[in-house]
Amino acid sequence: MFKETLLLTIAVLGGTGKEGKGLAFRWARAGYRVLIGSRSSEKAVTTASEIMELLEGSSSVVGTTNQDAAEQANIVVLTVPYSAHRATLESVKDALKGKLLVDVTVPLMPPKLSKVQMPPAGSAAQEAKEIVGEDVEVAAAFQNVSHEHLLDEEEIECDVLVTGTSKKARADVLKLVEAAGLTGWDAGPIENSVVVEGLASVLININRLYGSKHAGIKITGVPTQSAESA
Amino acid sequence: MFKETLLLTIAVLGGTGKEGKGLAFRWARAGYRVLIGSRSSEKAVTTASEIMELLEGSSSVVGTTNQDAAEQANIVVLTVPYSAHRATLESVKDALKGKLLVDVTVPLMPPKLSKVQMPPAGSAAQEAKEIVGEDVEVAAAFQNVSHEHLLDEEEIECDVLVTGTSKKARADVLKLVEAAGLTGWDAGPIENSVVVEGLASVLININRLYGSKHAGIKITGVPTQSAESA
Repeated sequence: MFKETLLLTIAVLGGTGKEGKGLAFRWARAGYRVLIGSRSSEKAVTTASEIMELLEGSSSVVGTTNQDAAEQANIVVLTVPYSAHRATLESVKDALKGKLLVDVTVPLMPPKLSKVQMPPAGSAAQEAKEIVGEDVEVAAAFQNVSHEHLLDEEEIECDVLVTGTSKKARADVLKLVEAAGLTGWDAGPIENSVVVEGLASVLININRLYGSKHAGIKITGVPTQSAESA
Repeated sequence: MFKETLLLTIAVLGGTGKEGKGLAFRWARAGYRVLIGSRSSEKAVTTASEIMELLEGSSSVVGTTNQDAAEQANIVVLTVPYSAHRATLESVKDALKGKLLVDVTVPLMPPKLSKVQMPPAGSAAQEAKEIVGEDVEVAAAFQNVSHEHLLDEEEIECDVLVTGTSKKARADVLKLVEAAGLTGWDAGPIENSVVVEGLASVLININRLYGSKHAGIKITGVPTQSAESA
């Protein structure tokens, strides 16, 4: 699909939020062209400048509207709160045809954040697939990575489980995981997104009960070399 | 609920299977009285003798029918294949009143073992709760611990996520996790069982793709001392 990383453009919709900004920083640092999308292009321009400053200008990060970002990109990453999930997807769906959508959304339903509550589609990612339709590959990833260390150099002790509508979609996202300096795993078909998204509620529960701030998960029992060559 | 570990009796229904036998071994070693339940009491007696032999007789393990085991026990652990889940629960439900049921079942639906496919109740544990009714506390745990190292001394690199119908039920199961030599976490209400059970399919997918045999998970980012004192 894509031969040269440097030619790939990633749109991060909702990229002015903490998670989106952190991921955008990591991908820009790895050499991707990154578009920060927001409902307000002004806010997006500010966030893009902040990232450029952190990277001392040696990267390409541009701020624009969600719609424009989705149109220009090869890969579209969605990092909005669940309350804006459907509206954002409806507003960009025509721009997504033939592209890969990576859904980072966790369908948290306040006030019970530590209770798994999925939408009727089964998960936010499956709901996204229903909205964007047949010509778009959809993957789910990055839900459980705390934004706190994405902007610094501290090691992030949390693996990324990647589900998706095809093996190719999952493989493409696993490259983005690696580019962000994280360890990723092919977690199977899009129907498995309930586990990946639902883990967020389990980790919120653990943080609450055990006094931690960013509980995560690591996959164990798999020899690293085989993971890397898979 | 229970003041002395030595007076507690745990029934392991389907205890002649590998997972049940391994857990029974661990609990007997920790000083619990253990009843192995099976549809065939003859098979159960054989398994009980095998465990007694491994422990050189210094424990109390008795084989009997599922029905009798459930009647005699304080805590009933269900380790049957999903195909026998409903029938086993129906056969012992009257004996469960006022007790704690720990459901280890993963609702795998062949042939797609690596795809999460939950029953209409939302998970096997929620289905169990529907079957056994109001007077029984239900918890879900141990789905992702590979049986292979339960009978030996090798360290098991897999944490146990515990969901349940009450905080007390989860706390009681966390004691069983610790007694089995494992690290457990309160993973929240019974509705979160979809994550714990669904992880089994994710781990099956990882084993298949990455050439491993017992992929597991570990919770990261939580200081150990706070975990222990929680």
